[in-house]
Amino acid sequence: MQQNKPEMKITRTEKSTLSHVDFDNLTFGKTFTDHMLICTYKNGAWQEPEIKPYQKVEMPLSLHALHYGQAAFEGMKAYKQIDGNVALFRPEENWKRLNRSAVRLLMPEVPKEVFIDGLVELIKLDQNWVPSKPDMSLYIRPFIFSSSDFIAARPSEEYTFAIICSPVSAYYSGAVKVKVEREFSRSAHGGIGFTKAAGNYGGAFYPTEKAKQQGFTQILWTDPKNHEFIEESGTMNVMFIIDNTMVTPALSDRILAGITRASILSLGKEMGMEIQERSVSVSEIEEAAKNGSLKEAFGMGTAAVVSMISHIGFDTDNVVEIPVPEKGIGAQIKKRLNAIRTGESPDVNGWMLKIN
Amino acid sequence: MQQNKPEMKITRTEKSTLSHVDFDNLTFGKTFTDHMLICTYKNGAWQEPEIKPYQKVEMPLSLHALHYGQAAFEGMKAYKQIDGNVALFRPEENWKRLNRSAVRLLMPEVPKEVFIDGLVELIKLDQNWVPSKPDMSLYIRPFIFSSSDFIAARPSEEYTFAIICSPVSAYYSGAVKVKVEREFSRSAHGGIGFTKAAGNYGGAFYPTEKAKQQGFTQILWTDPKNHEFIEESGTMNVMFIIDNTMVTPALSDRILAGITRASILSLGKEMGMEIQERSVSVSEIEEAAKNGSLKEAFGMGTAAVVSMISHIGFDTDNVVEIPVPEKGIGAQIKKRLNAIRTGESPDVNGWMLKIN
Repeated sequence: MQQNKPEMKITRTEKSTLSHVDFDNLTFGKTFTDHMLICTYKNGAWQEPEIKPYQKVEMPLSLHALHYGQAAFEGMKAYKQIDGNVALFRPEENWKRLNRSAVRLLMPEVPKEVFIDGLVELIKLDQNWVPSKPDMSLYIRPFIFSSSDFIAARPSEEYTFAIICSPVSAYYSGAVKVKVEREFSRSAHGGIGFTKAAGNYGGAFYPTEKAKQQGFTQILWTDPKNHEFIEESGTMNVMFIIDNTMVTPALSDRILAGITRASILSLGKEMGMEIQERSVSVSEIEEAAKNGSLKEAFGMGTAAVVSMISHIGFDTDNVVEIPVPEKGIGAQIKKRLNAIRTGESPDVNGWMLKIN
Repeated sequence: MQQNKPEMKITRTEKSTLSHVDFDNLTFGKTFTDHMLICTYKNGAWQEPEIKPYQKVEMPLSLHALHYGQAAFEGMKAYKQIDGNVALFRPEENWKRLNRSAVRLLMPEVPKEVFIDGLVELIKLDQNWVPSKPDMSLYIRPFIFSSSDFIAARPSEEYTFAIICSPVSAYYSGAVKVKVEREFSRSAHGGIGFTKAAGNYGGAFYPTEKAKQQGFTQILWTDPKNHEFIEESGTMNVMFIIDNTMVTPALSDRILAGITRASILSLGKEMGMEIQERSVSVSEIEEAAKNGSLKEAFGMGTAAVVSMISHIGFDTDNVVEIPVPEKGIGAQIKKRLNAIRTGESPDVNGWMLKIN
C-alpha cells in the first residue's frame, strides 16, 4: 500500500540513539525514537508530510494551541510479532477518532494518506525500536494542534499534525483502587468529553491528585448532573463483570469511544459473554460489589490494555474490595488481545496492519 | 516598587520593530512588542525570570501542554493616560485569577514578584508600544503552560510562565447578535469553566461557528443540565438591564469571575443602580425582551470592555431585537471605565497601577 506516495519527504537520521536506550528501565513516554512525522495545514490545505530526525522545533510563544487549546491526540501501539514482523493495532480506528476530535474542535481532518501512510513509513523507519519483550510495545502518539501565531479567541488558521513514538513497558503495575467522584466532573453534556482533546486531561489532574491523597489510584468518573451514573475510569473506559454479563456505560458525548473498549466487546461476544452497553448507576455497582455479583471490574485503554480494579471507594469510608481472579474474564481478554497482537493467535477480525 | 529585584535578567532588543508597525491597521493579537518575559518552574521551584527580545523558542513536540492541556492564560491591558503615563488596570486581580486557574489545573502558583514586578518591568521597557489613540491599548497576555518533555497522562513536572504583549484597537465593531445555545455546553458543574484554561476556548469554537452560520455573532451559553439558565456570552460575562436593575448570572464553578464584570458592578453601584447577581433564566430574559422591560444587554470582558447586544436568538426563528441606546447604561459605564483608565476621571477605587 505504500508504493504510491510521491509526496512525502523523508530524511533519515545520521546517528541513531537506539543503542543508548536502556529497554529494561523505560519511563512511559519519555524516550523517543529516531524519527518523527510532521505535516502542516495552511492556506486551507495540508502541505507535504515530512519524516525527519526527532528534534525540537521552533515555536512562537503566541502559538495558538498554548492559549486556546485546539489540540487533540491519539494513543496507539505497534507490536513485535512472533514471526519478527511489526504490526499496528487497528490504526484506521485511531485515524477516524482523531478526525472526530478534530471536527468537534473545529480543526481540519487529517487525510488518510497523511495519517496511515505516514504512520507506516515512520514505523518502518523506526521498526528496530519496537520492543520484543512481553508486555512491551512501541507507543505511538499522533496529534494535531493549532499552530497559528496569534492570540485572539478565534479558531486558528494553521494546524500541525505530527507523530512521535516512544518504546514502553506496561503502563500500570498491579490492580488499581478507584474512587467514585462525587464533586468534580470530567465533561459536560454538549461538551468535548468524547474527544481526546488536550483540555480534557488537564482538567482531570486536580481531582485525580485529590483522590491519590485519599489513597486511591484513579477516579471513577460519574455524570456531571447528579453523580449517579458511572462514565469512565481515569483515562480508560470501564467494564464490570456482573455474574456472567459484561456491563459497560453506553457511549455518549461525554465518554470516549475507546478502541480497546470496542475490541474487548468483540472478544467478549466471541467468548459467548452477554454484553450490555447501558446506563450503569453507582448504586447498582455498590450493591453488586457488596452482594458478590460483581465478579470483576477493569479499565480498558491503549496504554494499560486491561487494568484490573481491586477496590472501589463509594465514599472515603466505604471502600469495597473487588475480586481480581487470576484467570478471570479481564485476564483472559488481555491474554487474547495480546495473542492477536503478537501473532500467536489468528487475526480473524483483521485488526492488525503489518508494516513489513 | 521595582527597586528591590536583584533576580531578574533583562536583555534589551538591539533592533526595535516599533517603527514598522502600522497602528491604524492592527489585527487583534497578531503584532507583538519588542520584549517578552519568561520564567520556568522546575525541580519544584520557580527559576529566575528573564525579559528578552521577542523571539521564537525551541520546544519538543512532546511538550506536555500540547498533549494534556495544562495551560491557562490571562488577558489584561495597559493604557496611555492623559498625563503621558502608562497604567495597568487591576493587575493584581489578573495575578490572583491566574493562580486560581493554576490551582485547578494542578499547576504551580506564580509568585507575585514574578507576575507583577515582571509585568511592570516588561511594560516599562515596551511603554512606547502603548497606543495613545482612543479605544486603543496594549493587550497583555500572561500565561502558564506545562512544559515537561514527556507524553504520559499525568501532571507535568516543569512549567513555563510567560508574558507577551500586543498593541490593539477595539475588539468588536458594533453590537453583537447572540444565540441562546440549547445543544452544546461550555463547561460542567465540577469542571474548569471558572478558569481561563486553554481547553475551555478550543471547545467553544465549533458551537460558535455553527451559530455564525446561522447569522449570529456569538453564543449565549446556558447551563449544561437543561439549558434553562444563562451563563456567559461568548468569551464574556453578560449583563442585562431590566427596568432599572443590573442583572447578571451569579458566579459558579462554570462561570469566569471577570475582572471587567466586577469593575462594572462597582461602577453600577456608584451610579445608584440596583444590582442582582443571581440565576437568570432564558425564559425570564425572553419575556423581558418581548415586553420591553429588557432595556439593554451587553457582554463584559477585557478584550471588548462592553459589547452591546442588539439581538438575542432564543431559537433560530425567534430572534428578538434589544435596544442599544446611545447613552444607555452600557455606554455610560464603558465611558466611565475608559475615563478611569485614561486618567480623565479620578481613580477613586485605586484600580490603576502607574508604571512610570
